[in-house]
Amino acid sequence: MDSLSHATISQTEALAARYGAAAIPPAGPWNATIARLLEHRSVRSYRPDALPEGTLETLVAAASSASTSSNLQTWSVVAVRDPARLAALAEVADGQQHIRQCPLFLVWLADLSRNERLGAAEGVALEGLPYLESFLVATVDAALAAQNAVVAAESLGLATVYIGALRNDVVRVAELLGLPPGAVGLFGLCIGYATEAGRGEVKPRLPQATVLHHDTYDASAEPAQRAAYDALLGEFSKRHGMAADGWTQRVIGRIGTLRAMRGRDRLSAAIRSLGIPLK
Amino acid sequence: MDSLSHATISQTEALAARYGAAAIPPAGPWNATIARLLEHRSVRSYRPDALPEGTLETLVAAASSASTSSNLQTWSVVAVRDPARLAALAEVADGQQHIRQCPLFLVWLADLSRNERLGAAEGVALEGLPYLESFLVATVDAALAAQNAVVAAESLGLATVYIGALRNDVVRVAELLGLPPGAVGLFGLCIGYATEAGRGEVKPRLPQATVLHHDTYDASAEPAQRAAYDALLGEFSKRHGMAADGWTQRVIGRIGTLRAMRGRDRLSAAIRSLGIPLK
Repeated sequence: MDSLSHATISQTEALAARYGAAAIPPAGPWNATIARLLEHRSVRSYRPDALPEGTLETLVAAASSASTSSNLQTWSVVAVRDPARLAALAEVADGQQHIRQCPLFLVWLADLSRNERLGAAEGVALEGLPYLESFLVATVDAALAAQNAVVAAESLGLATVYIGALRNDVVRVAELLGLPPGAVGLFGLCIGYATEAGRGEVKPRLPQATVLHHDTYDASAEPAQRAAYDALLGEFSKRHGMAADGWTQRVIGRIGTLRAMRGRDRLSAAIRSLGIPLK
Repeated sequence: MDSLSHATISQTEALAARYGAAAIPPAGPWNATIARLLEHRSVRSYRPDALPEGTLETLVAAASSASTSSNLQTWSVVAVRDPARLAALAEVADGQQHIRQCPLFLVWLADLSRNERLGAAEGVALEGLPYLESFLVATVDAALAAQNAVVAAESLGLATVYIGALRNDVVRVAELLGLPPGAVGLFGLCIGYATEAGRGEVKPRLPQATVLHHDTYDASAEPAQRAAYDALLGEFSKRHGMAADGWTQRVIGRIGTLRAMRGRDRLSAAIRSLGIPLK
């Protein structure tokens, strides 16, 4: 049942696809699970085919198995199937049509509401809840859970893409999903079968020398590394018929202006309005 | 090279270990990767054995392969091997000795400093950087990357445990690792070979009915579910020679008082002092 689309790809080829041929890290231990992790790419075009019975429950079991800070389990997930809700969520996310197209769309929540209900039921004030720390724990819990679901989905031959653009309007997302105070939709996740055209190519990342530090942080070689990565990503973009911008220009385009934030400059006020004070 | 410690455990047994025999979800698709995800448990006792050459690079390659919001890659990781630094980090983390004991200790960073350097080098003000959204993107990026490293490590027969207690004092962690402004240590990760006694048992989680919602959030059955989970976790604790508290009492113990936060009630001020305004 384990599915690996390109079972014949070698370790060197997998590392070259991920980092570019000029930045392959030293070869370490390797196996089919690791090969599949390296194969990951985000997919934005899905066939309408339904998932096998019980797929959602298997993915949630994988999610439940991820670590959670002090076993607090401050995450929840909403599986959205109602077409009207999906259309409204797609609208929040700048009209991304794969949200309506994929057979399974999950919204992952940082969920402090469960602990609030617990405290209320027990008549105990939970002093730690209003603090940024609790929201951060919930965010990390939700991300670890979601990534386990992604790994499980890809092991079944399914494709995925995270939808951060739900944060364009977390208040609207909370209305659409009937969230209680203390819960906030952090990101969506499309799951389904990639179309042939949608599968795409592994996207190269920054070299290990840029993101991995030893004992202390050292960015002295970063300018040269960034220039090389700009060239690598520019080539990748050209192969895909996009403007051959390097990484530098894409970062500037993405976070250079408030306008590019699509409303997410108001996120901290929006989260507070959902009953999470971020003290 | 794929390692599965209990290759003979059935799907039903794995789900029963994770949710208790009374809350097994419907059986869906299954494979060895998913079985291994379900097998996860946090390990706090390590043999001194070194890891095979190149293990760190393989784990980072898995981490690099996780999704990252708009390819911003706002995470970094510091591999700490210097004994003095490890001892100091263990002290921040309430003296957790496995930080000194494990052969590989990683500190995962929400890292906005790289984009700050990029903006400075290009002479461009990145207006989006000071916002909570950017810190949230960095936190989710780091968590997805770290979880891929955990999945890769466990596929190699290694054990892990996340160390959230580094957040007791993120300013001290930044000093110890020489972090630039805009970078913050979110959590640590111990990696190594579990001792026989340290391997432990899979910890049961809240039932799927509590964390998984359909189209809209529905907590109406939560009180009964929580009571059942309290009993299940109480049994688990008793089997491990701990006080037979249920989940409810553990949550209250963990976030009921500011004192239990071990300094993390000051986290938002500490993160701001590290050059991340959380606007």
